[in-house]
Amino acid sequence: MASSKVSRVGEEVWKSRIDKINAEVVTLTYGTIVAQLCRDLIVPNTASKTDYTAVNAELDRMGYNMGLRLIEDFLAKSNTGQCTNFRETAEIISKVGFKVFMNITPTVTNWSQDAKSFHLVFEENPLADFVELPDDGRAQEELWYSNILCGVIRGALEMVQMQAEAHFVSDVLRGNDTTEMRVTLVRFIEDEMPPDDE
Amino acid sequence: MASSKVSRVGEEVWKSRIDKINAEVVTLTYGTIVAQLCRDLIVPNTASKTDYTAVNAELDRMGYNMGLRLIEDFLAKSNTGQCTNFRETAEIISKVGFKVFMNITPTVTNWSQDAKSFHLVFEENPLADFVELPDDGRAQEELWYSNILCGVIRGALEMVQMQAEAHFVSDVLRGNDTTEMRVTLVRFIEDEMPPDDE
Repeated sequence: MASSKVSRVGEEVWKSRIDKINAEVVTLTYGTIVAQLCRDLIVPNTASKTDYTAVNAELDRMGYNMGLRLIEDFLAKSNTGQCTNFRETAEIISKVGFKVFMNITPTVTNWSQDAKSFHLVFEENPLADFVELPDDGRAQEELWYSNILCGVIRGALEMVQMQAEAHFVSDVLRGNDTTEMRVTLVRFIEDEMPPDDE
Repeated sequence: MASSKVSRVGEEVWKSRIDKINAEVVTLTYGTIVAQLCRDLIVPNTASKTDYTAVNAELDRMGYNMGLRLIEDFLAKSNTGQCTNFRETAEIISKVGFKVFMNITPTVTNWSQDAKSFHLVFEENPLADFVELPDDGRAQEELWYSNILCGVIRGALEMVQMQAEAHFVSDVLRGNDTTEMRVTLVRFIEDEMPPDDE
């Protein structure tokens, strides 16, 4: 499927078949989740570096469970067929998946030579609008604020027989120039039982 | 302001000035919050009735903090002036507030004789789409799943000098015929400092 056609599918699905909600509600709701996890999992003024790691992991786990469910709705609404290769998968994630669910289209770039790994560059990120990380000297180094998105991609791909790994490599909230996620195909899953919720 | 004009304002603001997101993302994100709180606060197989009360209270608290922030954006986008009475406030909550933020317009009804208290009837509720309460014999009696909305209304009204109280009186998730919230004006707040976050 050519990239412009993929783009058009995403745009059409977004415009016509979706119940929509104010993005700021999502920003604030997501901020509430992260704040709650930080309250539950972070011990102030300790030297331990394990705490924000736990927040990142929990966000990823939540996203994974959302991804398992969102993919069904996605396949039902988008009429996208099976991808023939991982490059096509990347285009669909960006131009249909993110378009349909968040009304953004992150840029696919920085492919590895074996075409199993790429970057998504988020020029926009509704989850992080107007967000500032806690000024505790650690969040800027350790917290991946939007980590739920990694889990969503991991969960969704697993349901279409692709075991993948996803993690952020930079975030403007940390003071980086860009917000980028690395997505890597681990393997195609063949004829196995679907996973349980984590 | 006549009801139909209020309605038109809400429709226009919703259509033209809002970044939108897929409602299912909100449904799943909100479900993640409630599930997380239940995991944190509910002790399985106990006779105690205090646990879901704690979940309800925490959802209300989260909503309150969101309401304090949403109202600013709301006033900026909607150009609504000061309400002259609580009946007008109710119309604005339903036809502009809920319209702009969630693309629904709950029905205002069941006014008290002193015009200080009304019901919002939610014919639609994106937070609860396809949701089923835990089948533990208690959630159906004790959990107000969408309780965050009570907090949002309380927080938002407080920022415009109205101390209000809001609580659900029925919920289709519990098997009731309707989903209804009672909103009561406690008093107008005059010339005090704005509240801190809870």
